[in-house]
Amino acid sequence: MSQTVPSQIIHLPKGFSFSAVTAGVKASGRPDLSLIEAAPGTTAAALFTKNRVVAAPVEVGREALAKSRGLIRAVVINSGNANCATGKPGIKACQRICREAAKLLGVRPEQIFPSSTGIIGVPLLADKIVAKLADLISARASTEQGVAQLARAIMTTDTRPKVASAQFRAGKSTISLTGVAKGSGMIHPQLATMLVYILTDVSATPVELKRLLRESCDVSFNCMSVDGDTSTNDTVLLMASGKSGASLKTPKIRDQFSAALQQVCQSLADQIVADGEGVQHIIHLHIEQAKTRDEALRVARAIAHSLLVKTAWAGADPNWGRILSAAGSCGLPLNANHIDIYIGRQRVCGNGMGFPFDEVQAHRDLSQAHCDIRVKLRRGNASVVFQTTDLTAEYVRINADYST
Amino acid sequence: MSQTVPSQIIHLPKGFSFSAVTAGVKASGRPDLSLIEAAPGTTAAALFTKNRVVAAPVEVGREALAKSRGLIRAVVINSGNANCATGKPGIKACQRICREAAKLLGVRPEQIFPSSTGIIGVPLLADKIVAKLADLISARASTEQGVAQLARAIMTTDTRPKVASAQFRAGKSTISLTGVAKGSGMIHPQLATMLVYILTDVSATPVELKRLLRESCDVSFNCMSVDGDTSTNDTVLLMASGKSGASLKTPKIRDQFSAALQQVCQSLADQIVADGEGVQHIIHLHIEQAKTRDEALRVARAIAHSLLVKTAWAGADPNWGRILSAAGSCGLPLNANHIDIYIGRQRVCGNGMGFPFDEVQAHRDLSQAHCDIRVKLRRGNASVVFQTTDLTAEYVRINADYST
Repeated sequence: MSQTVPSQIIHLPKGFSFSAVTAGVKASGRPDLSLIEAAPGTTAAALFTKNRVVAAPVEVGREALAKSRGLIRAVVINSGNANCATGKPGIKACQRICREAAKLLGVRPEQIFPSSTGIIGVPLLADKIVAKLADLISARASTEQGVAQLARAIMTTDTRPKVASAQFRAGKSTISLTGVAKGSGMIHPQLATMLVYILTDVSATPVELKRLLRESCDVSFNCMSVDGDTSTNDTVLLMASGKSGASLKTPKIRDQFSAALQQVCQSLADQIVADGEGVQHIIHLHIEQAKTRDEALRVARAIAHSLLVKTAWAGADPNWGRILSAAGSCGLPLNANHIDIYIGRQRVCGNGMGFPFDEVQAHRDLSQAHCDIRVKLRRGNASVVFQTTDLTAEYVRINADYST
Repeated sequence: MSQTVPSQIIHLPKGFSFSAVTAGVKASGRPDLSLIEAAPGTTAAALFTKNRVVAAPVEVGREALAKSRGLIRAVVINSGNANCATGKPGIKACQRICREAAKLLGVRPEQIFPSSTGIIGVPLLADKIVAKLADLISARASTEQGVAQLARAIMTTDTRPKVASAQFRAGKSTISLTGVAKGSGMIHPQLATMLVYILTDVSATPVELKRLLRESCDVSFNCMSVDGDTSTNDTVLLMASGKSGASLKTPKIRDQFSAALQQVCQSLADQIVADGEGVQHIIHLHIEQAKTRDEALRVARAIAHSLLVKTAWAGADPNWGRILSAAGSCGLPLNANHIDIYIGRQRVCGNGMGFPFDEVQAHRDLSQAHCDIRVKLRRGNASVVFQTTDLTAEYVRINADYST
């Protein structure tokens, strides 16, 4: 395997083109309507939010994948309005956009995959979007600039665009992957206002794509939390054009692809957490010696979801008692006397008790942009690495008046 | 029934005396050691935190109730140090304090009920406390001033003492109840750094007390949340001296007592939420038309625990989409299209969609100290009223450097 390191260099997968325009959904006048067009025969698979309140595009997109048997020809994304809690009119607006885009592209409506992100509960004015579809489609190009424009146009409270790319060779073929993502607040396991599109030119069936996507998501997007809220619109879409000539049928290529996909997902997850609303510090939470990975995840989420823990991190305060207490409230029959906690390289809690440590050093470790915190449960051999963030007054400020 | 309204007037139950002194556990030099002494024959029952990480006094207190068969003669409370995550030395420190207090009071060690609140993970210096026990005991008095001192001495980040009292007549007897509480942050259902002591002069068995206490807690302390963190030290203790001459054996008295107890608990719960860290607005969350009360509670907690909802409330932002989304993530198979949401008296969401409403009025309603929010699920007839708060930048400031 060679060159699978994700980077800001965009390795354009063959068979895709991109564009973005301003349709006036965002009040700011910034680009808010974007397109990914895919070559005939492109296969696709997606994972969606587990929230019971789902946005219209999630319903319509799920149906599109089913009806088209995973043969998607274009993704139409608007930002500025989530088209959620908009009832039947929301579904109709979404379907109309898909229908009009399909007509202009000469494909079937179920081959259009819709996405929306933004405010919940405000009717989406389809007219504005439909009026710009012709411009959007005629602007499309298979260029790095097109990818960069797309990554910007899907942003809401994000402060920067998020792109990750990987490439590897298999025999005479070069396989490329490029992912773009948006997400900043409402970030929690099980996907949360997070839109991710990953494009590749490998050849694969929708079923293969779904399996690999789930594996990669489990260790990347599902192992992070900014604020614990689960969005109504989360979507991770993987599309494969097959234009590289290489196929996942070859086991070696499948392994290489799987590794590259995981790296792209991890890079995008890192970028999303780093852009978390008001985030000062990123915490890599290592939960070790759990009985099962699920158990480790449960402890990680309890810690990552505790306001008292997150605010202590905001102050770079090595208050390990709050970490211990949060772990204790996760619902598992943990034995506090078996728990060790490390901040950076220092053990700060041993057997559930304070352990002498250099507080100045711990404060310094927690003041860095990244800090490792390790919690050992002494119950088994399973572990998880979970990314989370501090909670700052800035987060509150950003979210205290979003809609008004 | 007469005069059961809880009030700041303290109706002293017969058979109890109170005191508070400074032992030097709190760095501030404020009173941090307090005592409730109870007459011989006093019965007691308690509810504790469900956190798996429990403080030494919770372990020792639970054992004391078991060994003494609910015959408690005194409560010794220190604030400033939770004596949690302090291992065996913490247990020993707690036992030593109980032993010394028992000796001075001429009772058995298991008749002393210990409590601690404050920072986690710092060894509790029993010497400081033991040295002050004689002063503490000699200062005790059966006065309203004693109750007020107790209520102050158990405070940590609380900004005001919390007392509630009720009284009713039954035949020739007058039965009094007085409760004191502390709690400000880490407040969540299942009790959270919350210490509550409720004293009465009715006559009751520990089993009767436990049953009534659980009933009253379920609709008061277990129906509120400030920050969703569950403490390691939570305790609600109910003690009955029997000195009024009236007994819970009489059904009518039991009913009157139950109502009075519920009112005292509710008043203390109200006071705790009102004193929540950084709280600007208190939200009374009415979850209605659930299938069961548990289901209603689950929806209430999901909403009360959402950072996006709580920060919107901080901005008095009628962003009902976040409420809907938080409800949707609670894990129940809710149908979004059946959900109605009201802010104040206005319907803002009908059948899961936006409903035209006066935004200025909604903003005004949410700007009040108290606001009612109603969520109807159209699934059944169960409901719950849940108290919660907004999340402000001030909360973050308070908690970002508590230990350092």
